[in-house]
Amino acid sequence: MLFIGEYELINRIRKVAERNKIWRSYIGMGYHNCCVPHTIMRNIFENPGWTTQYTPYQPEVAQGRLEGLLNYQTLVSDLTGLEVANASLLDEGTAAAEALSLCYRQNRRPKLLVSNMLHPQTISVVETRCQSLGLTVEINDVFEVDFSNRDIAGVLFQYPDTEGNVHDFSAVTEHAHSHGTLVCCATDLLSLTLLRPPSEFGVDIAVGTSQRLGVPLGYGGPHAGFFACTQSLVRLMPGRMIGVTRDASGRDGYRLALQTREQHIRRDKATSNICTAQALLANMSAMFAALQYGLDLDMNMIPNQLFFDTLRIEPKLEIEDIKARAYQKEINLRYYEDGSVGVALDETVTFQDINDLFYIFGGTRKIEDLLEDPMVREKSISRSEFKRTSPFLTHPVFNSHHSETRIVRYMKKLENKDISLVHSMIPLGSCTMKLNSTTEMMPCSFKHFTDIHPFAPLDQSLGYHQLFAELEKDLCTITGYDKISFQPNSGAQGEYAGLRAIQCYHEARGDKLRDVCLIPVSAHGTNPASAQMAGMRVEPVKVKHDGTIDVEDLKSKAEKFKNRLSCLMITYPSTNGVFEETVADVCDIIHKNGGQVYLDGANMNAQVGLCRPGDYGSDVSHLNLHKTFCIPHGGGGPGMGPIGVKSHLAPFLPGHPVVNPLGANSTSYGVVSAAPYGSSAILPISWAYIKMMGPRGLRKATQVAILNANYMSKVLEPYYETVFKSSTSDLVAHEFIIDVRDFKKTANIEAADIAKRLMDYGFHAPTMSWPVAGTLMIEPTESEDKQELDRFCDALISIRQEIRDIEEGKLDIRVNPLKMAPHTQEQVISSSWERPYSREEAAFPAHFVKPDTKIWPTVARIDDIYGDKHLVCTCPPILDEYN
Amino acid sequence: MLFIGEYELINRIRKVAERNKIWRSYIGMGYHNCCVPHTIMRNIFENPGWTTQYTPYQPEVAQGRLEGLLNYQTLVSDLTGLEVANASLLDEGTAAAEALSLCYRQNRRPKLLVSNMLHPQTISVVETRCQSLGLTVEINDVFEVDFSNRDIAGVLFQYPDTEGNVHDFSAVTEHAHSHGTLVCCATDLLSLTLLRPPSEFGVDIAVGTSQRLGVPLGYGGPHAGFFACTQSLVRLMPGRMIGVTRDASGRDGYRLALQTREQHIRRDKATSNICTAQALLANMSAMFAALQYGLDLDMNMIPNQLFFDTLRIEPKLEIEDIKARAYQKEINLRYYEDGSVGVALDETVTFQDINDLFYIFGGTRKIEDLLEDPMVREKSISRSEFKRTSPFLTHPVFNSHHSETRIVRYMKKLENKDISLVHSMIPLGSCTMKLNSTTEMMPCSFKHFTDIHPFAPLDQSLGYHQLFAELEKDLCTITGYDKISFQPNSGAQGEYAGLRAIQCYHEARGDKLRDVCLIPVSAHGTNPASAQMAGMRVEPVKVKHDGTIDVEDLKSKAEKFKNRLSCLMITYPSTNGVFEETVADVCDIIHKNGGQVYLDGANMNAQVGLCRPGDYGSDVSHLNLHKTFCIPHGGGGPGMGPIGVKSHLAPFLPGHPVVNPLGANSTSYGVVSAAPYGSSAILPISWAYIKMMGPRGLRKATQVAILNANYMSKVLEPYYETVFKSSTSDLVAHEFIIDVRDFKKTANIEAADIAKRLMDYGFHAPTMSWPVAGTLMIEPTESEDKQELDRFCDALISIRQEIRDIEEGKLDIRVNPLKMAPHTQEQVISSSWERPYSREEAAFPAHFVKPDTKIWPTVARIDDIYGDKHLVCTCPPILDEYN
Repeated sequence: MLFIGEYELINRIRKVAERNKIWRSYIGMGYHNCCVPHTIMRNIFENPGWTTQYTPYQPEVAQGRLEGLLNYQTLVSDLTGLEVANASLLDEGTAAAEALSLCYRQNRRPKLLVSNMLHPQTISVVETRCQSLGLTVEINDVFEVDFSNRDIAGVLFQYPDTEGNVHDFSAVTEHAHSHGTLVCCATDLLSLTLLRPPSEFGVDIAVGTSQRLGVPLGYGGPHAGFFACTQSLVRLMPGRMIGVTRDASGRDGYRLALQTREQHIRRDKATSNICTAQALLANMSAMFAALQYGLDLDMNMIPNQLFFDTLRIEPKLEIEDIKARAYQKEINLRYYEDGSVGVALDETVTFQDINDLFYIFGGTRKIEDLLEDPMVREKSISRSEFKRTSPFLTHPVFNSHHSETRIVRYMKKLENKDISLVHSMIPLGSCTMKLNSTTEMMPCSFKHFTDIHPFAPLDQSLGYHQLFAELEKDLCTITGYDKISFQPNSGAQGEYAGLRAIQCYHEARGDKLRDVCLIPVSAHGTNPASAQMAGMRVEPVKVKHDGTIDVEDLKSKAEKFKNRLSCLMITYPSTNGVFEETVADVCDIIHKNGGQVYLDGANMNAQVGLCRPGDYGSDVSHLNLHKTFCIPHGGGGPGMGPIGVKSHLAPFLPGHPVVNPLGANSTSYGVVSAAPYGSSAILPISWAYIKMMGPRGLRKATQVAILNANYMSKVLEPYYETVFKSSTSDLVAHEFIIDVRDFKKTANIEAADIAKRLMDYGFHAPTMSWPVAGTLMIEPTESEDKQELDRFCDALISIRQEIRDIEEGKLDIRVNPLKMAPHTQEQVISSSWERPYSREEAAFPAHFVKPDTKIWPTVARIDDIYGDKHLVCTCPPILDEYN
Repeated sequence: MLFIGEYELINRIRKVAERNKIWRSYIGMGYHNCCVPHTIMRNIFENPGWTTQYTPYQPEVAQGRLEGLLNYQTLVSDLTGLEVANASLLDEGTAAAEALSLCYRQNRRPKLLVSNMLHPQTISVVETRCQSLGLTVEINDVFEVDFSNRDIAGVLFQYPDTEGNVHDFSAVTEHAHSHGTLVCCATDLLSLTLLRPPSEFGVDIAVGTSQRLGVPLGYGGPHAGFFACTQSLVRLMPGRMIGVTRDASGRDGYRLALQTREQHIRRDKATSNICTAQALLANMSAMFAALQYGLDLDMNMIPNQLFFDTLRIEPKLEIEDIKARAYQKEINLRYYEDGSVGVALDETVTFQDINDLFYIFGGTRKIEDLLEDPMVREKSISRSEFKRTSPFLTHPVFNSHHSETRIVRYMKKLENKDISLVHSMIPLGSCTMKLNSTTEMMPCSFKHFTDIHPFAPLDQSLGYHQLFAELEKDLCTITGYDKISFQPNSGAQGEYAGLRAIQCYHEARGDKLRDVCLIPVSAHGTNPASAQMAGMRVEPVKVKHDGTIDVEDLKSKAEKFKNRLSCLMITYPSTNGVFEETVADVCDIIHKNGGQVYLDGANMNAQVGLCRPGDYGSDVSHLNLHKTFCIPHGGGGPGMGPIGVKSHLAPFLPGHPVVNPLGANSTSYGVVSAAPYGSSAILPISWAYIKMMGPRGLRKATQVAILNANYMSKVLEPYYETVFKSSTSDLVAHEFIIDVRDFKKTANIEAADIAKRLMDYGFHAPTMSWPVAGTLMIEPTESEDKQELDRFCDALISIRQEIRDIEEGKLDIRVNPLKMAPHTQEQVISSSWERPYSREEAAFPAHFVKPDTKIWPTVARIDDIYGDKHLVCTCPPILDEYN
């Protein structure tokens, strides 16, 4: 019965936040302070027009963020010097793991070589991930390794390394390549504005984090990992990539190039413009050099020969004295086990900060004096062989928006190309596009949440730990689990972490042979992928005609693999949109045969307050906080996929080499994310949602979500058949699938035609062709009111009439509003309109589609086939100076 | 040479802000805590799409905010029960002064009666304003006054009054009316949701502030004053009103109905919906009643018989004890001179707050217990004769957006109808639509600036006073003045305050006959209006053919009125866009003849860092902080018009009856705004702008503003003649006027046609027909880069070609793209396009007007004549349920 209002909530979360202490952190290790441009914070991060968009699967109404992502790819490609980059991964650790997996996929050698000079969390994530794939990881000094055995799939080193050194890896690279080993390099994008890019010494794959390019520390995330590689490896590249193709009018358009992954985004011909950041960086670099020189003069030992921003110092003072002085100045440093000290600087560092560092290390000098010293210049990268000489960020997009006026207009232009929740409902089955309220979003901008390093001492992060504890308690109450791990920063990571916990549990009990994972054929596609990543063998379970699990088949498979059964992965309500009435029995069958139950939490929105996975037999679930618990989709991320477990699995949750959530003596199997608590900085959203709703509100939300789905299903019944319903109640759960397969025969209309036509009505399409090919899955959520549900139903009903008109010959079978959808301004305003239907039918097909709220697709239907055929695409040159 | 960066600035202003202490303030007096909905704060107040719009003089690209303002008018009209309301005034004090001025204008009687139970600052503003108009103000108990002399123009009382009492004014009203006196009522919109509206006891005009309906305290502003009156007085109503008219397609459209003022916005037929706020208010009201009852039980004397939220208490404890207890609880109360204490409650009050109040007054009770007491209910308004029975807020717009999802979509829909700076340049001469950067805007959301009562003790507002002092110092350095008053909250208020200071200066020197104000005929229209309001006689000064002041005429007038000369009002650079090279001589002539110089600061953007009014002879100026100093226009406000004066005028700046900026013993002539420091809460914007630019940056901005204007003037020269230029340099200042008068003869094209056609090109029109009829005045500002200037010039050049095509007969003289502009989607997508030019020429007239950035007017050309002819308009009924 308890809930708290918006104003009380903000006061309360502010107090929680203020328990975090904001010291200056020069810890580095992949996390740096940086300047977050205020106008970007306000106009993108704090703007629902940007945060509430869905993943750009419908490119015609997503050209804005596709262009933004293409810019990101170009940035990564330019800075690393590699031909192709993807549209980001979760973090540096998982990007590194993906890089080594790619090496293995390419040459199938069983061994991977990893430098001992990587960030410790990168090593841990790589070890964890490779281990479950059955690969051997050797941690070593890469300069000492002999590749001639030709058994090493790939080598991974870091440039500059975790201690700050800039080494020449040319010989290592040449040696590795000569024996068929691929070369991966973790690197720092900011340093590459001054340093020779990895491509210039032969690296095949570069990975890292782009956090320091304008994203707050946020106690570890959300940030973006990057991944770039040579053209020859593009077919193996993980993650999403944006590519350029054509639309139905023959114009350029952007799209997600998932299938072919044959896009590259680098411009061949660099022109003359220079990135404005270079002046700043040159100044920064001089300050950093002066620090090194000053410490050196004051008799501290600094092994680093050449460095970008990070030093390892062997101090002349006692380490306890250093720590006391740092405490006094409220500065966090990296303390190595051998008593040496790491200092990582960044662009926010002031003269006073440097002078405080001199003081900490027992120096007496002032940065102001040292900067004049010619010796400082001698140490500069620009005088070394590592100086970058190749151009970068030469595309006009990086050189046209340098004033706030321009960048605001550019951001607004991109925003207004895309459909988001600020326009209309986005009824995506299985994706739960619900309200993300301002009050929930506000704490994410609090500096006490944004400005804290993930490896800051625990007594500086008490606010975060209170937040974690309270959210864990609430999520356990909601799910019936006993323990939560916040480390997985996506649903898929959660699945992986959960399955690994199950595996470790079996192994800890001496049950080492359990590797079979049962998965119904209707499961989310990530389920079998995660099982394979976790080293399991997937056995499919049949689904009956009514969409429910075939319990007999399940039972026979469970019994057949009795001795090898690891677990079942199941979704409830099922991906077909029905509550499986046998779910408790199903869990029971698995347990009786020695297995564990992994319940995919994607559909928690239909359960919260009504039933609990922990009660009906599940052992572990991930919770998509970005679905049920109100973290906005952000156009495709960030998400959060914490896992809840019953107590017997708790010891097997993820640990961490720097800040271990399970405690320092944990026996955890490993690490799934670079940051100990994943994307901590967005957890306040879910915390706030649960507090404001309270138990009654949460239950009501679930009930309304289910009611809304059933209402729409009934309204649409005379026009579209709902594929699956409960056989006992004739009802659906919180989402439902409508059947449009017959229209292919009767009118040559496919699901995609309906999806595109919905854009003309101002709507984003439902989930297409999943889980049943040729259908549409609709999830209204509890956030939409009856008026909006009716509006969407009316659009579908109107489309059904258009299909009927084709069936009855009133509309042409080839040139009709569905096949030609979506319609652009350019088309309907063209003088030459020669279609057998009117301009008004094209653009304003319903009474509620009016000029003043019309959402215009900015390209006509995207041509996937053209994009697939024309594999080499470049970022389109800007012909028009006024773009 | 000093300036500070964005990040340092935010840290610094945060520290300044935190010197303000946020106590609970139950002071009332027209300023109340309230709940500011977070989603409105973020999506309107913190959104440049809403803040950077200009005043809606071009209605075709302003339908969004016109609709918003119409909603506001409907709200005020509904709650007061009066037929018409305007679109807001500056504050309650000036609204009250306007009400009494209206009474005088209507019946020309020389005396005004003002209740002694008004807020003190309302009385002060009314007295100040009436005094300069030569009217007599009697402050009295309105129940005691005899109207039968028939010399009282109007009576003004407050309901509920400043001490919280709800009185029955029916008899007063009847008495006044029977003797031809108009009746004005200051009131509280929130109270009118429970109380009988003023219309029901015969009030003619209702005024007040709408602050407590969701606007933060902000140390006094910006807020909005409201003004409502009966239909019979509509022709005399001050301020802006929104009305409904038709567009060229015959559809409804909104517009500013300035000329006719014949709009009324109340729906005649109320339907059934009830405002959701009533439940909340009923609960609030019960709590307030419980407070009174509890205090009463504890032997405090409470004279209030019936009240809404404010009590005057004669405490049983010593006043010093009360103050000590309040200090301990960090609560501000209103302390009357006689030792009684005022308490004004609001919707943010919690049980704990009420219990703290019990403690302060020596009580021992708990609100939780009292609420059950039936005596509390007895005291409720709902059991009194004052209970409201008439419906309000029945229009669907108030009953359709109750979820955050809906209101966000509604706000976005309105935002996207309007052109703002996030789309393109708004080159309005004399209005300086420059960048309003995010960093400057951020502090306005700091709670230490938003949540402080204007009458809080000075030791709780040290942050604000530091801000005032620093901004005053900077503005004095920039202008050459010695002292600044921040009280005037608009440019016009600043003019009035400055002229009054001049008048008082003359009078203080015994020079009581100086009442002539010289004003060049090219002046801003507000100049003569302000002079008249200040009781001066305006004498026009001629302007020469080249746009400069006719110095000979000035000299002869100054000498002619030598003994009666009060001042000259002059704008520099002139409103014609040229630097008057004789300005120093002009000032000299005035001074030699005993006058003072008032320099209109509207064009400070051409002077900052280059020259200073205080140096070349001016005595006083207002500074439009919302022009030169980066406060955004906000679609027509709020602005700030502080005045700078030379030291001899400093004693005559505005004072205040509650918190006097000049010190408690000031001899100030009076008060121009309700709040002592005007719209304090937006001053951080100008403070931040000056700090971040620094002297060099400010000078550079001025130089670039002048350069940009001259660049455009030269680019346009082959196509449009610039009307005025310096005779010596052939240059303009920061703005320039292009001549389009000949086109009326050659092509039947007027300035308005060009303005409307510019919308098709994606631009807001420049200033039209001012200061020279039939011309356009362009001010690019320093914020726009060459690319945008070129884009705008290209639009004008393209339009010139269209005009040439008419001249040469290639385009029809009647049906051409200019006469038909702007073009809507509905028109160009219609199947029936029968115009002699193409759809593309209509909608995409230049290569840079493209579908993905096209800004569509949502109505065709607004028909002013129709609106003027059809005087009675109602808020259009919503026929479409999906609006």
